[in-house]
Amino acid sequence: MSGDRRMGVLGIGESLLRLSTPRHERLGDAAQLDVHVGGAEMNVLVTAAALGLDCTWVTRLADNPLGRRVAAHARAHGVHAIVDWDPDARAPLYFVEHGVVGRPTEVHYDREATAMRALTPVTFDWRALVAGRAAVVSSGITCALGRGPAEAVRTLFAVARDAGARTVFDVNHRARLWSWDDALPVLREVLVQADVLLASRYDLMRLLEREHADGDGVALAREALEAFGHELVVLRESVVDGDATVAVNVTAVGTDVLCASETYAAGVVDAFGAGDAALGALLAGLLGGADLETAVDQAAWACAFQHTTPGDAWSGRPSDLAQRRLGGRRVLR
Amino acid sequence: MSGDRRMGVLGIGESLLRLSTPRHERLGDAAQLDVHVGGAEMNVLVTAAALGLDCTWVTRLADNPLGRRVAAHARAHGVHAIVDWDPDARAPLYFVEHGVVGRPTEVHYDREATAMRALTPVTFDWRALVAGRAAVVSSGITCALGRGPAEAVRTLFAVARDAGARTVFDVNHRARLWSWDDALPVLREVLVQADVLLASRYDLMRLLEREHADGDGVALAREALEAFGHELVVLRESVVDGDATVAVNVTAVGTDVLCASETYAAGVVDAFGAGDAALGALLAGLLGGADLETAVDQAAWACAFQHTTPGDAWSGRPSDLAQRRLGGRRVLR
Amino acid sequence: MSGDRRMGVLGIGESLLRLSTPRHERLGDAAQLDVHVGGAEMNVLVTAAALGLDCTWVTRLADNPLGRRVAAHARAHGVHAIVDWDPDARAPLYFVEHGVVGRPTEVHYDREATAMRALTPVTFDWRALVAGRAAVVSSGITCALGRGPAEAVRTLFAVARDAGARTVFDVNHRARLWSWDDALPVLREVLVQADVLLASRYDLMRLLEREHADGDGVALAREALEAFGHELVVLRESVVDGDATVAVNVTAVGTDVLCASETYAAGVVDAFGAGDAALGALLAGLLGGADLETAVDQAAWACAFQHTTPGDAWSGRPSDLAQRRLGGRRVLR
Amino acid sequence: MSGDRRMGVLGIGESLLRLSTPRHERLGDAAQLDVHVGGAEMNVLVTAAALGLDCTWVTRLADNPLGRRVAAHARAHGVHAIVDWDPDARAPLYFVEHGVVGRPTEVHYDREATAMRALTPVTFDWRALVAGRAAVVSSGITCALGRGPAEAVRTLFAVARDAGARTVFDVNHRARLWSWDDALPVLREVLVQADVLLASRYDLMRLLEREHADGDGVALAREALEAFGHELVVLRESVVDGDATVAVNVTAVGTDVLCASETYAAGVVDAFGAGDAALGALLAGLLGGADLETAVDQAAWACAFQHTTPGDAWSGRPSDLAQRRLGGRRVLR
Amino acid sequence: MSGDRRMGVLGIGESLLRLSTPRHERLGDAAQLDVHVGGAEMNVLVTAAALGLDCTWVTRLADNPLGRRVAAHARAHGVHAIVDWDPDARAPLYFVEHGVVGRPTEVHYDREATAMRALTPVTFDWRALVAGRAAVVSSGITCALGRGPAEAVRTLFAVARDAGARTVFDVNHRARLWSWDDALPVLREVLVQADVLLASRYDLMRLLEREHADGDGVALAREALEAFGHELVVLRESVVDGDATVAVNVTAVGTDVLCASETYAAGVVDAFGAGDAALGALLAGLLGGADLETAVDQAAWACAFQHTTPGDAWSGRPSDLAQRRLGGRRVLR
Amino acid sequence: MSGDRRMGVLGIGESLLRLSTPRHERLGDAAQLDVHVGGAEMNVLVTAAALGLDCTWVTRLADNPLGRRVAAHARAHGVHAIVDWDPDARAPLYFVEHGVVGRPTEVHYDREATAMRALTPVTFDWRALVAGRAAVVSSGITCALGRGPAEAVRTLFAVARDAGARTVFDVNHRARLWSWDDALPVLREVLVQADVLLASRYDLMRLLEREHADGDGVALAREALEAFGHELVVLRESVVDGDATVAVNVTAVGTDVLCASETYAAGVVDAFGAGDAALGALLAGLLGGADLETAVDQAAWACAFQHTTPGDAWSGRPSDLAQRRLGGRRVLR
Repeated sequence: MSGDRRMGVLGIGESLLRLSTPRHERLGDAAQLDVHVGGAEMNVLVTAAALGLDCTWVTRLADNPLGRRVAAHARAHGVHAIVDWDPDARAPLYFVEHGVVGRPTEVHYDREATAMRALTPVTFDWRALVAGRAAVVSSGITCALGRGPAEAVRTLFAVARDAGARTVFDVNHRARLWSWDDALPVLREVLVQADVLLASRYDLMRLLEREHADGDGVALAREALEAFGHELVVLRESVVDGDATVAVNVTAVGTDVLCASETYAAGVVDAFGAGDAALGALLAGLLGGADLETAVDQAAWACAFQHTTPGDAWSGRPSDLAQRRLGGRRVLR
Repeated sequence: MSGDRRMGVLGIGESLLRLSTPRHERLGDAAQLDVHVGGAEMNVLVTAAALGLDCTWVTRLADNPLGRRVAAHARAHGVHAIVDWDPDARAPLYFVEHGVVGRPTEVHYDREATAMRALTPVTFDWRALVAGRAAVVSSGITCALGRGPAEAVRTLFAVARDAGARTVFDVNHRARLWSWDDALPVLREVLVQADVLLASRYDLMRLLEREHADGDGVALAREALEAFGHELVVLRESVVDGDATVAVNVTAVGTDVLCASETYAAGVVDAFGAGDAALGALLAGLLGGADLETAVDQAAWACAFQHTTPGDAWSGRPSDLAQRRLGGRRVLR
Repeated sequence: MSGDRRMGVLGIGESLLRLSTPRHERLGDAAQLDVHVGGAEMNVLVTAAALGLDCTWVTRLADNPLGRRVAAHARAHGVHAIVDWDPDARAPLYFVEHGVVGRPTEVHYDREATAMRALTPVTFDWRALVAGRAAVVSSGITCALGRGPAEAVRTLFAVARDAGARTVFDVNHRARLWSWDDALPVLREVLVQADVLLASRYDLMRLLEREHADGDGVALAREALEAFGHELVVLRESVVDGDATVAVNVTAVGTDVLCASETYAAGVVDAFGAGDAALGALLAGLLGGADLETAVDQAAWACAFQHTTPGDAWSGRPSDLAQRRLGGRRVLR
Repeated sequence: MSGDRRMGVLGIGESLLRLSTPRHERLGDAAQLDVHVGGAEMNVLVTAAALGLDCTWVTRLADNPLGRRVAAHARAHGVHAIVDWDPDARAPLYFVEHGVVGRPTEVHYDREATAMRALTPVTFDWRALVAGRAAVVSSGITCALGRGPAEAVRTLFAVARDAGARTVFDVNHRARLWSWDDALPVLREVLVQADVLLASRYDLMRLLEREHADGDGVALAREALEAFGHELVVLRESVVDGDATVAVNVTAVGTDVLCASETYAAGVVDAFGAGDAALGALLAGLLGGADLETAVDQAAWACAFQHTTPGDAWSGRPSDLAQRRLGGRRVLR
Repeated sequence: MSGDRRMGVLGIGESLLRLSTPRHERLGDAAQLDVHVGGAEMNVLVTAAALGLDCTWVTRLADNPLGRRVAAHARAHGVHAIVDWDPDARAPLYFVEHGVVGRPTEVHYDREATAMRALTPVTFDWRALVAGRAAVVSSGITCALGRGPAEAVRTLFAVARDAGARTVFDVNHRARLWSWDDALPVLREVLVQADVLLASRYDLMRLLEREHADGDGVALAREALEAFGHELVVLRESVVDGDATVAVNVTAVGTDVLCASETYAAGVVDAFGAGDAALGALLAGLLGGADLETAVDQAAWACAFQHTTPGDAWSGRPSDLAQRRLGGRRVLR
Repeated sequence: MSGDRRMGVLGIGESLLRLSTPRHERLGDAAQLDVHVGGAEMNVLVTAAALGLDCTWVTRLADNPLGRRVAAHARAHGVHAIVDWDPDARAPLYFVEHGVVGRPTEVHYDREATAMRALTPVTFDWRALVAGRAAVVSSGITCALGRGPAEAVRTLFAVARDAGARTVFDVNHRARLWSWDDALPVLREVLVQADVLLASRYDLMRLLEREHADGDGVALAREALEAFGHELVVLRESVVDGDATVAVNVTAVGTDVLCASETYAAGVVDAFGAGDAALGALLAGLLGGADLETAVDQAAWACAFQHTTPGDAWSGRPSDLAQRRLGGRRVLR
């Protein structure tokens, strides 16, 4: 587990207990709430670990039964957790009402005063953590938690680049956490240190301050490559493709490369963590030696698949990837 | 709560305990049944109260734990309940198997010997109840419960008109309660006292004794205006718009006015009470000072939305209405 | 299944759907209700069939999904059901709040207008039904359903005695169905036709119009033997023996015989049908050729055991009886 | 129940306990599993019994609580079960993850060392069992359980033909039980004794060793008629017709007859047992005196309907068939 | 509802969403959590309203779905809620693992940054709220929320006394909220304004700074009467009386009066809110015109009963009180 | 995780999926089954890891979703799992009906043809696994799985002693797996290699072939010390101490030492794994540096506590041990 750091990924981020109404009830009506554990970066690591990478998650957690549940979840899915336990913090929660056609999924965050908000650039010895890793992952959600966490991400990325690890960043803007106006200056400082960027077309439009997200995602990705100096921009697109179905594809854009996945359709049981599954599968492909075509395609497939099960992270098996031509419904592009 | 009667609505009707199979089981197979509370007029009031009206519900209930649960449900949703408790009556029940494509939802009524069936025109002091109210609501279901309830509705409507309150009636024909042949003479006596009529195209066809419900709902509504002297006929139409989705619109037809909503699509989690949500939102709009366009549109949106959650009544918030452009999928007409 | 009538028992009675709150909630609070099927005589037959007797149940049921569920329940437990289906009747229900120390179990009956209430002495051809049976069973609950059912029981018992079958009657007084004053004249007419009587000490006291149930149940049983001409009076006694535990014993009293079981203790999961389990096991013993000591002891054990599982009837296996020395905790008398 | 053998069907096969994740969870995540009982031939008999046939099921079961649950399930649905109890065998299980679009339903069989695997041609007195029956039913699943069961089916079919009963066989190839290479020689020996064959187009292609299942199912059925000497080949086709909907039709092909059902659409709640429902309804039609058109059409409708409820067998009512024009959505062919 | 203030009680306090593991799981293991609503003062009002008092609850709540659920809960139980909605606050939560013998119930509070913590002495117009009320209720939990809430309670009590309303205070010390050292100076300032004090023997010992809670609760109560000038000190004592059973009694001590209840036993389903039920029933008795003996006895009975059902408040019926001689097991003192 | 082998324990054994009826239903009646994971040796390791030891579990598992769930369970609880995956084996299951007073808990094993049955003395490189460990643990259940597993345990114990690790063996006789006659010769060969033996008084009586387990457990333990050469014999005793309560104590007997715990009482929610919790806590004490008194006492407390929660293993925290004086009810000996 501590083993081979050459295929190792280090992630940093906050994980939460999710409390969701079981059968489409509103929060005011449900007699019981389902308990899940999720958090963008940990979800990515769960998927990457399921597909064979050696994954380590660095975080701060409340030292109470809720925080310990989060750590057990990571361990159960084969992710090594390095935790700075905080006896005084709250465990972050989020409450969910799963939507259907005509009613969007509602998220009610309750993540104030949590342990991760007290993260600072000196909480961990980044250099030791990064040594020998192939990649380091974080996301815009971590940056939204406050100045400390945002600076910690920047510090980590700087150390990682210095140590020869790839830096991977998922924009993951959450309007309920911060506005784009607040986010832009913070994110841009991180973006210039990110080798691989995961973003939606809308994210790119906002990051590049375009007026309209008109048409061409690839063009926007190329602008981002130039503006921020990324090695690769990975576009994820999900479109509603029927009543309770989503169609997903992933496109990787580099200076000299353009590579698009099949479009995979999926019935929506629980849409959380779909982008994280994509990133986890992409990393597993890239670091595991697959070519970019394969990595991108399995990212799209994992992303689609993640919609079809309850919970926040895809944790299937490497052999499942071979079946994606059967399970996924190909949609013409 | 007793407060401002100028925006007040008085409703009369029976409410029931609903016992439904939780996961599409047949009634013969389910190990547990979900418990909900519903009833057309009370559902209307729950929605109207949620949107700001001062709502009072008049009813008779069995004085037992099931009857008291019904009253608590009304109170929880901000509806003032005036109850004539009956220690000897049964609490009405209905058993439900929710359908899917290819299997219609089945309702098995068990509503004999209930308290509301013993309602008579002299059970309540209508004049005192109506004083100062803006509107009075009832439906064809109440009329189907027997001669006493039907006469009570007629008496109430007469008193209401006399007191300057609008009378609002939802046809709500239930084939499992009475046939159209039985219903027609009873309903017609009420219709001539109804200022606002809620009906489907099929209802209008039957009420006007047309052979076919061919084509033009608006023309039928105009005939009804003339035949029964309504101020407004509100047509609600729901069409299946895919696998588990419904598309809803509402059209209000008056002598000099024709006003149609957007068509809103909704995934069907639980179809009960959709028409009641429409009527509740319409009343909230009309009595709350909105223009007819807005009132009709929010009626259609509440109706669509009500399909997406379990339970019999929509009880969202005024601010939800502003979001209907986002939540509802507009369908071209 | 129709097979060997020599070991056959015929029962007549009403069965109901039971709707109980799952986890000690009050009826006003439970979001779901558990569904069970029960009814005194059918419960007796389920136990007797489980222990090897050929059992037939005669009843009237509502011809709707709830009534059909009742019939399927009997069949699943190996009881042959002869049903006069009634398309116009209600299915009887009862709602239950299971009690604990300090809060007695509450039963809320909803069994008006059911099919069994329309039973009359000519509904079935009793002579054909009884032919070749060893015993016929009914209870005071059936007599409480109305004059028709009570007369039907008397007619059946007369026919049965005439045909050489033993008549077996369980007093089963239910205060929520009728008062002792109403019950007494009706029950006495049946008692004089009952060969075997199952009763509690309190029942005997009321039937014999004693002032106090003082002390000696056996003396009361002897009086009943004389008063009503029974062959055997079977006393069942349950006493609370700790916090959530009951201690049960059974004593059979005949003219020349006195036979008492061990006292068996049982944790109370669901107390319904305990007396029916006793009677079913007693009949299985007596008709299956066991001596009275064994029959009485297995009756007490089945009665105790029935408290330990959810549902209304004991349906174990003959081999379970051999283990009763292990499972039951003997209590000194 | 033993009654009228002229309308009687005898089935032989294995039934299993099904343990499925309740809400689309993976097997690794579910805190509870739903329990159902199913098995191809028993499912057929449940449907046929529900529609009025006298049905008997012959099987071997583990003599333990799981095996006894299977027998009770058959009895509850009106199927007479003749069981050779095996105290040493395991009860067969299968674990299920219900799929959605993009994720196929997963079945994990756990059916080794079961009682039915020890079935031999001399386990039962086939001649006595068959006497007077109109039809005998088995399927390829029983043949896949081993040489003994396969030979038992062949012996039963030979005895049945000799006794004038129709032999009915459902190919039901299960790739997780045996390969087509293993299955072919075994199935062909049974096929030449089958009067009625139920198969998919793909089954026929494999049985006839065609390279591609190109186009014409009817032509393949005609080839099978000739190759194996069937009286009737019944093709069942299910196609995905939207997001969570299936469209089903049934075509019967005989030497001089071609008869196709409507196509019925159904929302998929639980796809298990759909083909068995078709065969049960077909048999109920054919043996109950309906014309082939009606039998085929009700087969398709029952098949569609069976997708819409949880559990393995359709057990509606004869009157439900009359409503199939309302419930089923006709699709143009 | 606004009606008769002469029998009116005003309460102030915080209410929370309770999330408890359903079946004795630890928080780290439960797949679902039960949702309840509770809070000391609101629980008191729910009981008092159920027994006929006119009850009003003053509070601050988070203006989100969780806060609105709390308000609906009060309304459903007939308590009028006057809410100062706070869009920026968290809704308070508490997580519960119900204990059994050998494992105490665990409470994990998550009630930082809530709306009630921002309560100040000027948030409400106390004089208007108090006008005409018979009594005003609060507890030590409210005082523990911060300086603002504690001062608000003191202000309210001063205003109430001035207006002729009785002031009622439940010590309710919660060690997980504050230490006795922190609590003592705050509580003492309130105690001198409390006419009626509810306390345990241990509370009195701490408030009076005795070393040991040796023996005589009545003597301690008499000391408190003198020290703080109360009119009445009400002692509640609960002792474990068997495996999962509690025995409860209540003693009221005044200058010239000493009055003790029966001791009532109760099986423990959910121990929360038992003291609140006692206070609610006491107030209903005192303000409703009962003598002190009756009021004290029904307080003990409601307290015992509240242990036997899930949820935080007793909400039975006045008629239930008459049955307390049946339901309660009297224990010798 | 691989870390400090000086405090390391290696365990070998089979773990199973447990499927239990949720609410005291019989297996024939439950609509759902609860899923847990357990297995004697893994349970021991879960407890030991929770209390700070470095624990590694060696096993063979079916390479299917059920087997993988078992491995994830170990990981989630901080136990390092070294698995020899077997694609052809079944995952072992056991079905449970939890008992109450009067009805013993029933276990129905379904553990034939599992991966662990194919374990042989050469499956793993024991020497490498044992290197540096402080202790090695197995139990009689593993020996009952067949000759291969039994020999593997003997080989492992021999290697362990050779490497300086303590060998620890729990007799754990399971009558449903093998008879004492079959077990005795196998167990004795292992016992002579066990440094620490965990046993009940009854186990010792059988192992030493005494006629009666009369009186003195300590004397039997001393005989075992002499007969098999153990360093320590640890006696665990559980006696029913009321209705649904158990009282537990642990006594350690060495040549020159006798050390007995307090007796701790516990309400029984789920009795599985209680002995394993005792052994895990004992090992954590002994290897973690506690004195024998403390180790024995925390073993008894963990054992008692394990009865109070659902699931197979105690996984609390080191700090919980300090509270055992509060949580446990001391019983006089």
